[in-house]
Amino acid sequence: MKTPSSLEFLTEALRRLPGVGPKSAQRMAYHLMQHDREGAATLGRALTQAAERIHHCAKCNTFTENEICETCLDASRDASLLCVVETPADQLMIEQTMTYKGLYFVLMGHLSPLDGIGPRDIHLEKLIARATDGVVSEVVLATNFTNEGEATAHYISETLKARGLKVSRLARGVPVGGELEYVDAGTIARAMLDRRST
Amino acid sequence: MKTPSSLEFLTEALRRLPGVGPKSAQRMAYHLMQHDREGAATLGRALTQAAERIHHCAKCNTFTENEICETCLDASRDASLLCVVETPADQLMIEQTMTYKGLYFVLMGHLSPLDGIGPRDIHLEKLIARATDGVVSEVVLATNFTNEGEATAHYISETLKARGLKVSRLARGVPVGGELEYVDAGTIARAMLDRRST
Repeated sequence: MKTPSSLEFLTEALRRLPGVGPKSAQRMAYHLMQHDREGAATLGRALTQAAERIHHCAKCNTFTENEICETCLDASRDASLLCVVETPADQLMIEQTMTYKGLYFVLMGHLSPLDGIGPRDIHLEKLIARATDGVVSEVVLATNFTNEGEATAHYISETLKARGLKVSRLARGVPVGGELEYVDAGTIARAMLDRRST
Repeated sequence: MKTPSSLEFLTEALRRLPGVGPKSAQRMAYHLMQHDREGAATLGRALTQAAERIHHCAKCNTFTENEICETCLDASRDASLLCVVETPADQLMIEQTMTYKGLYFVLMGHLSPLDGIGPRDIHLEKLIARATDGVVSEVVLATNFTNEGEATAHYISETLKARGLKVSRLARGVPVGGELEYVDAGTIARAMLDRRST
């Protein structure tokens, strides 16, 4: 018995999705062909369309279908604040908090020398040019609080401070709703050091 | 901030995949756009192609790109044996055992009155016509050993035996490598009833 070649091609292609192994890919392919042909066609169109239309914003690097994204074009935003994030998904999270009304710069990654990802790969030259446009007065570093994210924040901080910019970092501390008993010691230590007067 | 519409369309479409919720769909969409544009385009083509090309074999119902599948056309197979399975994936599993050289009939489901899936939905008329072609002498029921699979096997068995056909069912018992201590009582009971002389 030979599996039809277009079915094999589909199973193979589904493995490009993160977290999808050979067995899940086969299940997905058979599911679509058996129960959701229309879904397969729709997803096919969505992928082709997204791969064609989605570009990076010339100003901030985030995903957009235009030359400049809507956020960068929004005149009601505070252009003196620039928040640096690793990915468009992180940017979306910050937007959802409704606490930030400045602009963004999306690195599309983080420094990771072991994986060969250096300053060029996270568009550092572009960030420097963006941050020193004369309008930006403070850069808020919102990279992840992982080793790579922290190292990236440190590197960018040093680079931008050397150019006279004010640089800040998201606060670390106990998460909202966090119970001390279940929070790791490193987080509590940081919360103690960064304690604020009330 | 507005997510580009083609990215939203892609995230929505990825949710048609089995086991993919809103959060995974977003992660997949961002991953593809950020790290694997080519993968997105390839998967897009694969889906469109499969949705267009994959049909059901006119004889056995399995997936094929042709009118009749390769298995049904294979003259070296024993046309007197017809194995009934629920899905093409089940058929593939049986093929991989290399123990069966007859033909197949794929139900594309199982009876499930509660879900409104009756004999018509599992192509029972087509199976009867196929099994009574004068060449088939034994029908091997290889539906799953779940409640629905067992009920389906029972229903098909009654229907085909009433037409004078020999009908058999895959053996139940302790799995290869199975340790009695960890096998459920129902399986051991069945293995005891179906014990064979050695």
